[in-house]
Amino acid sequence: MERATLTKDTICAIATPSGVGGIAVVRLSGDQALAIALHYMPSLSQLQERRATFSTFVVDEGLLDEVVVTYFCAPRSYTGEAMVEISCHGSLYIQQRILQALLSQGARMADPGEFTRRAFLHGRLDLSQAEAVADLIDSTNFSAHHLAVGQLRGGYSHELKELRDKFIELTSLMELELDFSDEDVEFADRAQLLALLDVLENKVTTLCNSFRLGNAIKTGMPVAIIGSPNVGKSTLLNALLQEERAIVSDIPGTTRDTIEDTINLDGIAFRFVDTAGLRKSEDTIETVGIQRSYRAAEQAQIILYVAEAELTSVALQEDINDLATHVSLQGKQFVVLRNKIDRCEAAVSSTTLPYPQLLISAKQGQGLEALRQLLVETVRCELPTSDVLVTNIRHYEALQQVKDALGRVRQGITMALTADLVLIDIREALYYLGQITGQVTTTDLLATIFSRFCIGK
Amino acid sequence: MERATLTKDTICAIATPSGVGGIAVVRLSGDQALAIALHYMPSLSQLQERRATFSTFVVDEGLLDEVVVTYFCAPRSYTGEAMVEISCHGSLYIQQRILQALLSQGARMADPGEFTRRAFLHGRLDLSQAEAVADLIDSTNFSAHHLAVGQLRGGYSHELKELRDKFIELTSLMELELDFSDEDVEFADRAQLLALLDVLENKVTTLCNSFRLGNAIKTGMPVAIIGSPNVGKSTLLNALLQEERAIVSDIPGTTRDTIEDTINLDGIAFRFVDTAGLRKSEDTIETVGIQRSYRAAEQAQIILYVAEAELTSVALQEDINDLATHVSLQGKQFVVLRNKIDRCEAAVSSTTLPYPQLLISAKQGQGLEALRQLLVETVRCELPTSDVLVTNIRHYEALQQVKDALGRVRQGITMALTADLVLIDIREALYYLGQITGQVTTTDLLATIFSRFCIGK
Repeated sequence: MERATLTKDTICAIATPSGVGGIAVVRLSGDQALAIALHYMPSLSQLQERRATFSTFVVDEGLLDEVVVTYFCAPRSYTGEAMVEISCHGSLYIQQRILQALLSQGARMADPGEFTRRAFLHGRLDLSQAEAVADLIDSTNFSAHHLAVGQLRGGYSHELKELRDKFIELTSLMELELDFSDEDVEFADRAQLLALLDVLENKVTTLCNSFRLGNAIKTGMPVAIIGSPNVGKSTLLNALLQEERAIVSDIPGTTRDTIEDTINLDGIAFRFVDTAGLRKSEDTIETVGIQRSYRAAEQAQIILYVAEAELTSVALQEDINDLATHVSLQGKQFVVLRNKIDRCEAAVSSTTLPYPQLLISAKQGQGLEALRQLLVETVRCELPTSDVLVTNIRHYEALQQVKDALGRVRQGITMALTADLVLIDIREALYYLGQITGQVTTTDLLATIFSRFCIGK
Repeated sequence: MERATLTKDTICAIATPSGVGGIAVVRLSGDQALAIALHYMPSLSQLQERRATFSTFVVDEGLLDEVVVTYFCAPRSYTGEAMVEISCHGSLYIQQRILQALLSQGARMADPGEFTRRAFLHGRLDLSQAEAVADLIDSTNFSAHHLAVGQLRGGYSHELKELRDKFIELTSLMELELDFSDEDVEFADRAQLLALLDVLENKVTTLCNSFRLGNAIKTGMPVAIIGSPNVGKSTLLNALLQEERAIVSDIPGTTRDTIEDTINLDGIAFRFVDTAGLRKSEDTIETVGIQRSYRAAEQAQIILYVAEAELTSVALQEDINDLATHVSLQGKQFVVLRNKIDRCEAAVSSTTLPYPQLLISAKQGQGLEALRQLLVETVRCELPTSDVLVTNIRHYEALQQVKDALGRVRQGITMALTADLVLIDIREALYYLGQITGQVTTTDLLATIFSRFCIGK
């Protein structure tokens, strides 16, 4: 396991979105940042720290641009290194030419996320915070943004770090026992250790359990639209998206592929999946489509079950029972939508079912506002009162490993195993805990994490 | 004619290219800029001028982002007004939410180019310089950039301004004569006036003449590829672009529409137009295509005339003569390309023609490097030694008006017309001269100029 190390070279990149704009910002970080930048600013002999300074940027062939340049001293910068930010006119030519000039003076192009990686390696933020930076930049709605900001401000990583430190302190006494193993003494207080294990396991379990919701909020809450053929599932999708996303016809079985699209409702992203209608079919393509419908329902957090408004309660319940033989409805929000109320002659009364029901007309837009509210409330109710939600699959996987290892530690202590055996599992738990906050890192781990960043951050 | 005036409200916009990136910059300009920005930065009570300051950005629902904020005092800012630049994480959500927050505190969205418009109205730059900012941002190659930077640094507008001032000084004496018109005195020295007219007319004529080249460099030097059917014009286009842009076949008349694409050679943009082959055709569509070929040749600065390498000199000269009956070759660079030398059995010798000739094989790539060099040199030779090139059609049109008016002034003076008659034309010349540098502006004129800017500049 190679410990991730810091390279000393000076990196540069365009930090602003790619394309043409009023201004663009080129960033330099590293020991040579100031010298490289000043090379192209003949009118300046020095730069005052943090002072936005007007300058010309002069290259071999002449004046390239008029820029505003700001110098950040180490360690009081984003990366913790000397940094220079050059704010130039946002033409593609100028942006590229500035980069080229900086490279020719010895800077090199930054890898994706390398500025943040350096910030992490200089202790400006921990690993979980560094990951939050990428989440923050990717966030497109209130909820995803809210989670990312929480994580950036420390989130659960501070808490985990404290617990880990306490755990290390307690178990270091067990390490000591190994030196005296012949004498069969016990330095570590097993009872105190078990109490800390309780706290840790509790915390880790809560975090693990929050992942399904956290991930759904980050990537969009998956909602499957399920039902028999021709009940108006695609019409409902189009109505919710307010565009003609899915092809709609009177012919049962029009939709074969699952069709996905995302909308924001009240700051929460919902990922709707329209599916093939459920029925016994001889058509091979349709049968494949129906299998996909079941899979979509399986992966959804919320199932919108669409049925004809005039369908009898008995028939409806039978259809749902049939669905339940293919899909586990456990832990999912299941909503029955009685559609086409605009076509009903008599008033439709809700049947008694153990699920929330709404009377709607996807075609006429009736009941859709109530549906939107129901969806938003469903997510709101599930949100824990604290903001602690695991949204990162890497954290989730590490937490699962911690949980397993802690279970084995508890077993070992309860069974009065010797210190050396218990310590194997303790070290594993500590290792995975440390991975979350970055106290344990490897070059590979960092490479994986930072590769999902954009260049320039 | 309404004089363009300044509004007092505070404007805001995203100044960086649209999209997701490491960071984005939101700009505020106007009296309330500082107060509006500080409203969302509870940890700061004041901002030091030009100092990049870390801050949280807190909105109603909580922490939105960690930002770096820089305050520029009036008049030492880009616009000449109080300005605040907020450098935030480049997520779409954050960018939009910050704008929304600023708007809710009384800022309004900036119109395209409004920051630069305010800079002009505050005398931070003249109109020609303001226009250069837009050109600078649009420039995608060395030459276009070079011209824009020249104009931004003053270019010919300073010179014009000086000449205009001198002109005003001299002719003000003529105004005086009007007050004494009964007495038939002459305060203004007609000889001195004629000498200044010489200088002005010379300058304006040079500038007018430079427009064709200046405009070509800015938008790409137009190069028409012309010749009989099936001589390899589309193959040449594809070879120059290094992609399969035009459909190529052995069937004569494959290309009907004119096909355009731009490439940069040595920092100069060339806009190549592939055309339908020239021949007598009965096919209606093809005939339309051939008309378009003539038009493309007419509009080009450079004509690449492609012919079979084995064509006799006499036939070649006949074809060119025929082309000359449809298209004026005057003032254009005409190059003969003898194509398909890879298929020739005997060595091909250049025929005696009053045009540069190159032996090429578009298919095999032979001679293309020489062609590229020839193209670059053609433009280089045409470039005047000074950098004064008019690239802006608005300037060109105003200069034409100045030229016409100056001609009438000269005529008037030579014919010893009375001061009041000569002054009409002088005022017109001054009016159009002033339009170029912005001493004479109207709201309409400014609206037209700044509408081509991007928002945030």
